[in-house]
Amino acid sequence: MTMSTVDLNSDLGEGFGAWTMGDDDAMLELVSSANVACGFHAGDPGTMRRVCDKAVENGVVIGAHVGYRDLAGFGRRALAMDPDDLSDEILYQISALEGFARAAGDRVRYVKPHGALYNTAAVDKDLAWVVVDGIVRFDRHLAILCPPDSEMSRAAAKIGVASYAEAFADRAYTADGALVSRKLRGAVLHDPDTVSARAVAIATTGKVTTEDGQELDIAARSICVHSDTPGAVELARRIRADLTTANVHIESFVDREN
Amino acid sequence: MTMSTVDLNSDLGEGFGAWTMGDDDAMLELVSSANVACGFHAGDPGTMRRVCDKAVENGVVIGAHVGYRDLAGFGRRALAMDPDDLSDEILYQISALEGFARAAGDRVRYVKPHGALYNTAAVDKDLAWVVVDGIVRFDRHLAILCPPDSEMSRAAAKIGVASYAEAFADRAYTADGALVSRKLRGAVLHDPDTVSARAVAIATTGKVTTEDGQELDIAARSICVHSDTPGAVELARRIRADLTTANVHIESFVDREN
Amino acid sequence: MTMSTVDLNSDLGEGFGAWTMGDDDAMLELVSSANVACGFHAGDPGTMRRVCDKAVENGVVIGAHVGYRDLAGFGRRALAMDPDDLSDEILYQISALEGFARAAGDRVRYVKPHGALYNTAAVDKDLAWVVVDGIVRFDRHLAILCPPDSEMSRAAAKIGVASYAEAFADRAYTADGALVSRKLRGAVLHDPDTVSARAVAIATTGKVTTEDGQELDIAARSICVHSDTPGAVELARRIRADLTTANVHIESFVDREN
Amino acid sequence: MTMSTVDLNSDLGEGFGAWTMGDDDAMLELVSSANVACGFHAGDPGTMRRVCDKAVENGVVIGAHVGYRDLAGFGRRALAMDPDDLSDEILYQISALEGFARAAGDRVRYVKPHGALYNTAAVDKDLAWVVVDGIVRFDRHLAILCPPDSEMSRAAAKIGVASYAEAFADRAYTADGALVSRKLRGAVLHDPDTVSARAVAIATTGKVTTEDGQELDIAARSICVHSDTPGAVELARRIRADLTTANVHIESFVDREN
Repeated sequence: MTMSTVDLNSDLGEGFGAWTMGDDDAMLELVSSANVACGFHAGDPGTMRRVCDKAVENGVVIGAHVGYRDLAGFGRRALAMDPDDLSDEILYQISALEGFARAAGDRVRYVKPHGALYNTAAVDKDLAWVVVDGIVRFDRHLAILCPPDSEMSRAAAKIGVASYAEAFADRAYTADGALVSRKLRGAVLHDPDTVSARAVAIATTGKVTTEDGQELDIAARSICVHSDTPGAVELARRIRADLTTANVHIESFVDREN
Repeated sequence: MTMSTVDLNSDLGEGFGAWTMGDDDAMLELVSSANVACGFHAGDPGTMRRVCDKAVENGVVIGAHVGYRDLAGFGRRALAMDPDDLSDEILYQISALEGFARAAGDRVRYVKPHGALYNTAAVDKDLAWVVVDGIVRFDRHLAILCPPDSEMSRAAAKIGVASYAEAFADRAYTADGALVSRKLRGAVLHDPDTVSARAVAIATTGKVTTEDGQELDIAARSICVHSDTPGAVELARRIRADLTTANVHIESFVDREN
Repeated sequence: MTMSTVDLNSDLGEGFGAWTMGDDDAMLELVSSANVACGFHAGDPGTMRRVCDKAVENGVVIGAHVGYRDLAGFGRRALAMDPDDLSDEILYQISALEGFARAAGDRVRYVKPHGALYNTAAVDKDLAWVVVDGIVRFDRHLAILCPPDSEMSRAAAKIGVASYAEAFADRAYTADGALVSRKLRGAVLHDPDTVSARAVAIATTGKVTTEDGQELDIAARSICVHSDTPGAVELARRIRADLTTANVHIESFVDREN
Repeated sequence: MTMSTVDLNSDLGEGFGAWTMGDDDAMLELVSSANVACGFHAGDPGTMRRVCDKAVENGVVIGAHVGYRDLAGFGRRALAMDPDDLSDEILYQISALEGFARAAGDRVRYVKPHGALYNTAAVDKDLAWVVVDGIVRFDRHLAILCPPDSEMSRAAAKIGVASYAEAFADRAYTADGALVSRKLRGAVLHDPDTVSARAVAIATTGKVTTEDGQELDIAARSICVHSDTPGAVELARRIRADLTTANVHIESFVDREN
């Protein structure tokens, strides 16, 4: 049986002050990459510290989950920003997180845009370029975690930034590889058996079944597991167990020897 | 004639979005140290970038002007924070600024607390310790700019952080070395001749005349010049010219060769 | 058996955007007064609308839960504000909530300060005055809900504002009627039997047993039930049931016929 | 000579905390309508109080200048909001301002959307509807100040809300009545003689000369004068004087006898 490798990433540190979201500590025992909110759409300095400390303790790689400055909208609303401002906000967020990553004994290793920024930069060439520009201004050795074959992956390739593709085991895909809109029925899969089986398929065969029953090639180096849905921790635990049973090695896509 | 050296520092980058405060560009041609707001009491990523770029262009040293998270109050209102939260917020602010300092080709070299944090940490031993702790968690080689003989300078000394004392040429001092409260008449000096003469005296003799006419020893390595008062730029230019005439070398207290 | 009357109040609408706190809908079926967060320490327009609509639907009286402008600290940190600014912020918050109360078919009927503002204004005469001033500027017919025999109740009495005292069934009291500090063991009671029995005692006898076993007179017209602790809804339901069994009528302290 | 009437409106109260923008006091002696920022894109409770007090003192009508919750972007960036959230935010802002208008002895009389909300709702039918819905939820007797023949004026007409058209004396118009984009040369007119003459023409003839020299009918009941550009107060004073000389009566479009 061939040994394959996949990364499990999750959006963490998404509380703010007295408000919590998800169980960061539990998830940090299950994933290999932590997308840590940096204070613009969620996250606060204390939460960033706790997540970074626990991530390093558990050998989880730290990524900057950068988003629009929109606490009230959790970064889920598109904001028509000036490109220079957005590049500066991305640089600000990565830098702020770097302080906690270093205090914990590691560094920020990759960037994943959040919410509306992620969705828009996936398909908008100009915005994708701004995101990559913000990353490069911090450190061109950071990787970017993004959808496969997206404007972000293309912008990264052009400028020489490593990009890694992620897939969603609990989301339906169309035949052309896009996620089915959340507004449509069946967009999100809830059955743990189904979701976990898809995760294993993605990791071992590089294929996922589309909504119309076809086999889609999806070369994802990482699988995103949600942290804030009901049963999120149990589902992540199940996926991890099933991957392990399937002889899949769970490991970050970044090489910390650099 | 003996050559002496003094630093001129100013609070810069204190705009926020569409709002401006002071003339950063003009001041950056006159001072040797820029206390740059980091987004909590003032400042935004775009402003931080512009100030850092211009500071590096002009050879001005970059310091993090860290404050309470209180845009509505400009960081001038005491906030009863949990010490861990405050230490984390200081680390966050320094780190965020470091991104822009590095992108501009330099680094953050020192920290100066702002407003209510500055005033309280000057006299509150516990708070002073929290401030220094936040600095050390970022990098123990950063210096702190603070009042002479203050709880901050003492906390810094204990933990091995370099502290540099600043004086205010336009503020009245009491006989015991404290600033006269802004609530009292005569607390702020407005006459440019007087203010500039006091700056020269501080730099050349280490003495300043108190409100009751005594000579006070004030071993200040830096003089703070305000950026946001009417005539601020003209006053800073005058002070710089008079210091130069008095054979005082204007230079930062940090050694960037480290 | 004598019929007595008591109000049950709870802090509601304390979510912010994507973040929730407590189960507003469930609590609104159990209490007679809703202290609704107004957006400064918690709460957002959508949440304010939902709570006001549901409150009116259930006959629950709407009060403005006014707090410091401090989302990151949930209004729990003392902030050294200028009195005029604070009065204006109180007027702003009550007014904003009034829009949703009126759209739902009712009005704001009372004000309860939140968190650090509540704790400080209870014992600080000047601050108590500012709070009452903010209320009067909106409408001197609003009531204030506050601790018995506090600086707020005294300021209200002087200026002719109706004040109503609240007690906490789940907090230990000292012999002189103060709450035992949360920093001390035994400050918060967790046993539902005990808490509910204390609520009944407060409502029927006007007395509560202090930490040292004495009987304390506590003339509370309202009992505060928490919404955000584990088991909060169940405890509120239990208290309501036990009060009803004890022939206590649960009713707001305000007369909406005015 | 015929007597005609026009309103002069200006965006006021656009400071935030320590930051100021424009000279509210001077403008309040020149205009008949004050579009007062309500705290979402600019404005704070203290500023709202000062502007409302001075407006009432000078007989200036108070309008709510409602905008996106985006202090960092000054409400100038389009934000893809949920319609219900936006309606709630509009209701919140009007209500908050109403508190200060009433404390000053008057009421909010109209609403003018700000920045990106204004620009988008002028041409987006759905968004226009949301804006009008937010107004109606507060009070259907409020007027709306908006561009002539816009989606906002049409939505208002349908629902029975009074709308009043405004023109800009210092902006170039295209032949079809649109404003020339600010990105193009000549979009903003700076010569006081020209701008004032256009204001008089708008008020007396209902016509304005377009960028290509045609006469455009513009049935504007109000002229917007800027408060935050260099020379804004002088220009407003000049326009007011020239209108008076031309026998134009400067008066709000609302009838406060209602």
